[in-house]
Amino acid sequence: MPEGVVYLDGNSLGPMPKSVPERVAGVMTEEWAQMLIRGWNKAGWMSMPSEVGNAVGRLIGAAEGTVVMGDTLSVKVYQALAAGLKMRPDRKVILSDNGNFPSDLYIAEGLVGLLEQGYELRTVDPEDVAEAIGEDVAVVMLTEVDYRTGRKHDMKTVTELAHAAGAVMVWDLAHSAGAIPVDLAGSNCEFAVGCTYKYLNGGPGAPAFIYIRPDLADEAEPALSGWLGHASPFDFDLNYKPAKGIERMRVGTPPVLQMAALEEAMKVWDGVDMTDVRQASVALQEQFIKEVERDVPELTLASPRDASIRGSQVSFRFEHGYAAMQALIDRGVIGDFRAPDIMRFGFTPLYLDGANVTAAVAVMKDVMGNNLWDNEAYKVKSRVT
Amino acid sequence: MPEGVVYLDGNSLGPMPKSVPERVAGVMTEEWAQMLIRGWNKAGWMSMPSEVGNAVGRLIGAAEGTVVMGDTLSVKVYQALAAGLKMRPDRKVILSDNGNFPSDLYIAEGLVGLLEQGYELRTVDPEDVAEAIGEDVAVVMLTEVDYRTGRKHDMKTVTELAHAAGAVMVWDLAHSAGAIPVDLAGSNCEFAVGCTYKYLNGGPGAPAFIYIRPDLADEAEPALSGWLGHASPFDFDLNYKPAKGIERMRVGTPPVLQMAALEEAMKVWDGVDMTDVRQASVALQEQFIKEVERDVPELTLASPRDASIRGSQVSFRFEHGYAAMQALIDRGVIGDFRAPDIMRFGFTPLYLDGANVTAAVAVMKDVMGNNLWDNEAYKVKSRVT
Repeated sequence: MPEGVVYLDGNSLGPMPKSVPERVAGVMTEEWAQMLIRGWNKAGWMSMPSEVGNAVGRLIGAAEGTVVMGDTLSVKVYQALAAGLKMRPDRKVILSDNGNFPSDLYIAEGLVGLLEQGYELRTVDPEDVAEAIGEDVAVVMLTEVDYRTGRKHDMKTVTELAHAAGAVMVWDLAHSAGAIPVDLAGSNCEFAVGCTYKYLNGGPGAPAFIYIRPDLADEAEPALSGWLGHASPFDFDLNYKPAKGIERMRVGTPPVLQMAALEEAMKVWDGVDMTDVRQASVALQEQFIKEVERDVPELTLASPRDASIRGSQVSFRFEHGYAAMQALIDRGVIGDFRAPDIMRFGFTPLYLDGANVTAAVAVMKDVMGNNLWDNEAYKVKSRVT
Repeated sequence: MPEGVVYLDGNSLGPMPKSVPERVAGVMTEEWAQMLIRGWNKAGWMSMPSEVGNAVGRLIGAAEGTVVMGDTLSVKVYQALAAGLKMRPDRKVILSDNGNFPSDLYIAEGLVGLLEQGYELRTVDPEDVAEAIGEDVAVVMLTEVDYRTGRKHDMKTVTELAHAAGAVMVWDLAHSAGAIPVDLAGSNCEFAVGCTYKYLNGGPGAPAFIYIRPDLADEAEPALSGWLGHASPFDFDLNYKPAKGIERMRVGTPPVLQMAALEEAMKVWDGVDMTDVRQASVALQEQFIKEVERDVPELTLASPRDASIRGSQVSFRFEHGYAAMQALIDRGVIGDFRAPDIMRFGFTPLYLDGANVTAAVAVMKDVMGNNLWDNEAYKVKSRVT
């Protein structure tokens, strides 16, 4: 971690695991440069999406061979929704909540706009999801942990409700994978998707993942039926025939440099128990909430106070949150801002401890107590993230 | 280039430009590791898809601001087809040819399967495309240069025929960009897509590109409406509103390491005139055909003999092409094989000269004349590419 930085934004972009540059350099100079096209076979590039998928799967309670990497999370959401709708041809509603990440909603909107008349994205408040799962819902799509507040849905309960109403369940684990224990198989959901550049530290633009419940993987219809999801891509048949299982959710040529960075980053998790990570994360969050509420009264807790329904982040509301966050970042305390007024802080025990939390709160106290955020330079919304 | 290799497969995966590893290492150790989340702003990661798009655009005759990078080619094909169909709501046919890359056809098949009844992918022989463009065709989708034979469609003529019939034209430039001069603006087509890991040397899994004719960019409806194609992604609106112009074809978080590798690779093209590249490529191809037909009579030319309707590759048919290609690769002459019987050789004058061609043909003569391919080890189809 750079000198003088307390990094509380691993929930947006995880830091670089130390061994990543050497690995990626090796892929460039020893594989790409030397093996050229032969790298697809000799260096195993072609099987990376499945192998890395297995490494991710181990952290989220998914069995071997049920997760595959590729594309971006938005594309994976599209694949899951399209396949989910196909499984319920007599229904036309995608149900989500307004705590979902906007891109998931946009993707659903785009899909609905493409389909015949009558398809609909229905969005309710997070607390109203349970009662909104009616008999007309084809697919329930939710993000387990709210990107703004950290509020956590109960995957198992909601999935049961979806199934009781005859709907397909799609979970977005963007803020879950590597952050909290996830029992994907135990949840019984049909689909899950997520990204790997947050808590999994895969690097900017790291590949996303998709999971299909194994009993359904051979019947899920891929809408994005690209050649690498074909049963025999190198036969160059003119007709599409999906590969067996989760491999059918591959689309195009995998981004080998990003896959290698992610594969290397996943090694950090060897032997790590997510229960231990969770326990340490909750301790850091509880300390943070306590110290902020004691020393920085200008901020109002936006996250659930009950740790059992909170992910691995703590958010506070402040009217001038954008400027305040710039002032903090300028002083080495890096969190981020989410419109309209959320200051977001992620807790990642792999590289944070209690002393970091105390140091961060001291800076927050200084910035807020002395109105250091009240500076024109911090108010210009020039940032793109 | 590695010792003892004549690389005739730059049409599948271009070699690594020398300066790429240093650039990518810098992105990791100076940007990701040091700037962390701030890299999106400070290092300009967020604007890379547009900036690299402009660099690619310059090579294919596309104006500034009309090309954007991202995803894989299959995903870009999907976006172009979906937007194209929306432009012709009264028509339901996508027309293509069986010389198109199978993934393009698969993607069209997947899209058609998702839409309401009546949509159809119609595939004809390449030479029958012109007369098949009827009044029921919504979108004509073709790859300019056939991946197997190198046979080249006339973009301008076919686009005119498509427009005369009221259809939207989508060109796949996978085997064109960096290989032959392309006048995209002059062709008047509505959409174009392509990949960058072939002649543009962007690396394995390098991002794809998409172009929309500028007068239509503000009305193209993005089916894959991800947040980075939103007019204001960081407002986190609940409703999708497409960005102005080509930016709406962005989907999710860009793969920064791959973008940096590609951006660096594009510098090779600074000051390069595609007309010169084409002239040198044709000279190499003509030499290759002449020498192969003189010295390797076992092979039958599969590419057009007329260079004006051929891309930047030369293909030969041979019944045991798979084994023969393995034998060649084993001896340092790297081309590739495309089922059922095509031996494919790409010509890339940026790093090949006449002496390379002569050296390659000498090896081919040895392998074919002495039946060195007739070896069980070469017949096992273990390769995935």
